Amino acid sequence: MSNAKLDSKVVQNLKDIAQKLRIHSITSTQAAKSGHPTSCASLAEIITVLFFQQMRLNMKHPRDPSSDRLVLSKGHAAPILYAAWAEAGLFPVEELRNLRKVDSDLEGHPTPRLSFIDVSTGSLGQGISVAAGMAYVGKYLDKADYRTYVIVGDGEASEGAVWESLHFAGHYCLDNLCVIFDMNKFFCSDIGTELEVYRERLDAFGFNALVLNGHDIDELVKAFFNAASTKGKPTALLAKTVKGKDFLAIEGVDEMHAQPLGKRAEAAIKHLQMKIANPNVRLSPKKLGKCGHAPEVHINNIRLCSPPNYRLGDAVAPRLAYGTALAKIAADNSRVIALDGDTKNSTYADKMRNAFPERFIECFTAQQNLVGVAVGATCRRRTVAFVSTYATFFTRAFDQIRMGAISHTNVNFAGSHCGCSIGEDGPSQMGLEDIAMFRSIPGSTVFYPTDAVSTERAVELAANTKGVCFIRTTYPNTTVIYNNDEVFAVGMGKVVRQKPSDEVLLIGAGVTLYECLAAAERLEEDCITARVLDPFTVKPLDVQLILKHGKLCHGRIVVAEDHYQQGGLGEAVLSALADYRNFVVKHLYVTNVPRSGPPAVLLDMFGVSSRNIYKASVAIMKK
Amino acid sequence: MSNAKLDSKVVQNLKDIAQKLRIHSITSTQAAKSGHPTSCASLAEIITVLFFQQMRLNMKHPRDPSSDRLVLSKGHAAPILYAAWAEAGLFPVEELRNLRKVDSDLEGHPTPRLSFIDVSTGSLGQGISVAAGMAYVGKYLDKADYRTYVIVGDGEASEGAVWESLHFAGHYCLDNLCVIFDMNKFFCSDIGTELEVYRERLDAFGFNALVLNGHDIDELVKAFFNAASTKGKPTALLAKTVKGKDFLAIEGVDEMHAQPLGKRAEAAIKHLQMKIANPNVRLSPKKLGKCGHAPEVHINNIRLCSPPNYRLGDAVAPRLAYGTALAKIAADNSRVIALDGDTKNSTYADKMRNAFPERFIECFTAQQNLVGVAVGATCRRRTVAFVSTYATFFTRAFDQIRMGAISHTNVNFAGSHCGCSIGEDGPSQMGLEDIAMFRSIPGSTVFYPTDAVSTERAVELAANTKGVCFIRTTYPNTTVIYNNDEVFAVGMGKVVRQKPSDEVLLIGAGVTLYECLAAAERLEEDCITARVLDPFTVKPLDVQLILKHGKLCHGRIVVAEDHYQQGGLGEAVLSALADYRNFVVKHLYVTNVPRSGPPAVLLDMFGVSSRNIYKASVAIMKK
Repeated sequence: MSNAKLDSKVVQNLKDIAQKLRIHSITSTQAAKSGHPTSCASLAEIITVLFFQQMRLNMKHPRDPSSDRLVLSKGHAAPILYAAWAEAGLFPVEELRNLRKVDSDLEGHPTPRLSFIDVSTGSLGQGISVAAGMAYVGKYLDKADYRTYVIVGDGEASEGAVWESLHFAGHYCLDNLCVIFDMNKFFCSDIGTELEVYRERLDAFGFNALVLNGHDIDELVKAFFNAASTKGKPTALLAKTVKGKDFLAIEGVDEMHAQPLGKRAEAAIKHLQMKIANPNVRLSPKKLGKCGHAPEVHINNIRLCSPPNYRLGDAVAPRLAYGTALAKIAADNSRVIALDGDTKNSTYADKMRNAFPERFIECFTAQQNLVGVAVGATCRRRTVAFVSTYATFFTRAFDQIRMGAISHTNVNFAGSHCGCSIGEDGPSQMGLEDIAMFRSIPGSTVFYPTDAVSTERAVELAANTKGVCFIRTTYPNTTVIYNNDEVFAVGMGKVVRQKPSDEVLLIGAGVTLYECLAAAERLEEDCITARVLDPFTVKPLDVQLILKHGKLCHGRIVVAEDHYQQGGLGEAVLSALADYRNFVVKHLYVTNVPRSGPPAVLLDMFGVSSRNIYKASVAIMKK
Repeated sequence: MSNAKLDSKVVQNLKDIAQKLRIHSITSTQAAKSGHPTSCASLAEIITVLFFQQMRLNMKHPRDPSSDRLVLSKGHAAPILYAAWAEAGLFPVEELRNLRKVDSDLEGHPTPRLSFIDVSTGSLGQGISVAAGMAYVGKYLDKADYRTYVIVGDGEASEGAVWESLHFAGHYCLDNLCVIFDMNKFFCSDIGTELEVYRERLDAFGFNALVLNGHDIDELVKAFFNAASTKGKPTALLAKTVKGKDFLAIEGVDEMHAQPLGKRAEAAIKHLQMKIANPNVRLSPKKLGKCGHAPEVHINNIRLCSPPNYRLGDAVAPRLAYGTALAKIAADNSRVIALDGDTKNSTYADKMRNAFPERFIECFTAQQNLVGVAVGATCRRRTVAFVSTYATFFTRAFDQIRMGAISHTNVNFAGSHCGCSIGEDGPSQMGLEDIAMFRSIPGSTVFYPTDAVSTERAVELAANTKGVCFIRTTYPNTTVIYNNDEVFAVGMGKVVRQKPSDEVLLIGAGVTLYECLAAAERLEEDCITARVLDPFTVKPLDVQLILKHGKLCHGRIVVAEDHYQQGGLGEAVLSALADYRNFVVKHLYVTNVPRSGPPAVLLDMFGVSSRNIYKASVAIMKK
């Protein structure tokens, strides 16, 4: 059966549904007294054809792994998406009037609080990367028939992230991906958006790019058929649309952007109602096919396939242990995947690539798309993803990580090259704000393992921990201090040196734990005994352990970290102690922008060496 | 005189210089035992032609505002850039052997510690936006003859930021900008980099795109001449080059990426020496022309052209006061510029656009380029830039802001739409990690003004404050609480309510200051008197004021902020108190990802309303 030409009655039904969606977009935003109805109107026919002609959906289980995906990158058009699900029968249309209310999940921009939303949108230009991640998994891992659609506004096409993901989709020949550009012209700034320019750009980025009238049902059906039949490259539909289309006295009026229709609503609704041939029209989305389903997968209880295998005193870089552990959990579970941004030799993600090349995704030097693809790949619990690059380069994707948390993502991040301890490459390559960034992500877990054993366990724990996980992997070799059978847990720190007489508690992680241990040695020569604590996770922090040992050490704590002052381990410790009197904390941190030089020299020059810790400990004894 | 064809002797001299630069790239990285000599080798002829044939430079004053600019976006090729300046006579070539040493400013990646570097590079894909900012100022503000060159690696062309800035440069017809792509093919991942694909992409992005042999002096000279003669569009040179070019037994060997030549260095140097016709060749860069100079500018002591003009008790949105103040300082100083990313109606940057359209730069929905352009526009102290968008969308450009700080930039950022208090638009639009992000920037100043008067003063102070400044502008109307003649300073807080009997100190900023004041009213009904403090700047924080009043309030402090727990005002206060015993702090913050709803409801639901502050204050009385 060809989908390319529809019966005229079917077309009329679809037209009627489109107008109903327009009416819902008006009424819901009227009730909310805010929202973007005109940005919905331009999408009415596109959404209608997608829902009632194109996509295969499971209405009983919207996140069925075998059903088609739709990402609304222009999240401000949420009302029409909600309207489509209501018209399709998922919930009563009356609920649409609860849009943006505090007790409704129909939020201003879509979030996965709703059963039919995979990812939050609303920060522009992120949808294609997420959709590309879904499509990549569909094509190469699930090898299933589901297709992925993403609707993008023309305004957000200025975002570089868009071009990163178009490049990715073209490079990996994601022919199961269809990107729909809603070219409604009236985005806020008047930049020339000639469709032809965009067609050329998309063509040059490896797409099957089609220009069409986004309000013409037949053209849309034909274009989607073309998209589905085109093999070897993704398709982009450049849909020429009008903002506020069919809204009486509002169509194409720029001033009406980003606001409800107010007094003009009633007339606009009447006008739309008159255009509807059959007010009782009801259509249903297509059901799933009988074959081409996604396989059942199990992603719980992932384990290292063999325990850590080091000798105490070995010198091993934690970033190397990261690569080792990654390959080990990938051997344990076939849905573990790794993604990297052209740094795999340095992050040691290449150990995974060598072991399981089919589960390694090279995302090039494009960190925003790197993160977005991972978020998409993990949706509907299809995979467990580990994303690696230099710690500081995750700052490039802070917005994507932030949105990932709002999307309830479980992506794991591993950042190498943290702090001064990388040495000669200089400050542009040093992660010195990465803990601050990842701590600020709601629900995140921040691992800062010190040696190879704890790093392997951090990877294993991250694979099974909900929410965003970040593992800070240290660049230089560090000494193995834990036995291979040492037990680690999220939120459980370790006291690595203690005596009953201890008078000060030193807290460090990664390279600074060793600086703390060296400082403790030197303090002992001065008859000051110091306890040393390794937090293992900076978030959640082992508050009880710090409180207990801090008190035993007379409330004197020195924290040293290879990170800037703000938002890192030191402020995490201070937050843990906020509610208690009688603690005094000396916080040692990287005091200024570092420079190129030998790691040991830099640690000392910028204030976090054993000598600095020793001095701070002597000073704190007077407190 | 046409520059299009050179005398053969001149060509030979240039060839000799290129080989000398190659030798310096080997010897300096050998001495450093690290670095990327093969990535330098591909650039030798390009750099040689730029320095000794093309660019107009002032060797006595490398940052002469009238001289040509060069940004090395692929910062890892720093050694050959240093070598060019040494060969041009800026410093002795012997100094090149101090590359990457801790007591030398010849760092692994370029930083403005060097007199001839405008911006730090090393995080890939940022150079074009900075160069575009320089070129924009050159063309539209300075109206001067200087040209801007930027050298980009092919690997970094995957970065979306690159396409944002190419779009910007094309849109604004920056014909004084020349982007040189060093297409040396051997970047880490094997993605097809057919030159023709790039030519098509650049063409579609509005460039005069030329393909040439990057090792052919004549072709380079011709191409630069073409670039300089092309009006109305920027030029991109797609220079086909070879990594490790002319390095004996190394040319084109991928394994030699990112490492010094080691044992192969000696033979490679001998081979290069044999290629040099005249070992004593010396050339000088072109001097500046007699006209077309950049105007002298003065950017010190910028003032509001008229003082704030509000009445106590007025309800005014701080974001609106931001726009008002921006236009006022722009009236005072002709070098104040504003940049915005398609949000000018919401950030109120449009007040500046309306008053001084020629000094407003619309950067579209592309925040990475937005920040990069601002960094470029402020280089060599040509302008004072204010960049605005929603606070949370600056997360999109964290890497650019971080690199800006390493570049010693003075760019000012204004983020609107902070916290839950924006209400119905939902969490994707709420800045809840922006203070954490900007506090982590070295040398930054973070303003969090509460009312319209203090916001105007924050803008005035930011214009005159070195380093990155961030102004968090509140979305809803807030009550004017300061007189128009109130004096504000960086690091100076205000006690806005006090009695001698106060037993607890409440600290809030923006909307939460008003919640603190309301809580204090309610506490008074319970016979608990509370002092209220407005920090004005979160960084630097007025530590002495907090210590003094905290002690007077029996060490009891409640901090409330419309921001997540980590890295914000609360942790700043805890850092300030770290070194002192006998304080107890209850920190109220947004406890989880918020949702759509009325602002007042959300503030209460997520833990930072007056009711929450009241409860915390009652609880802390027991401490």
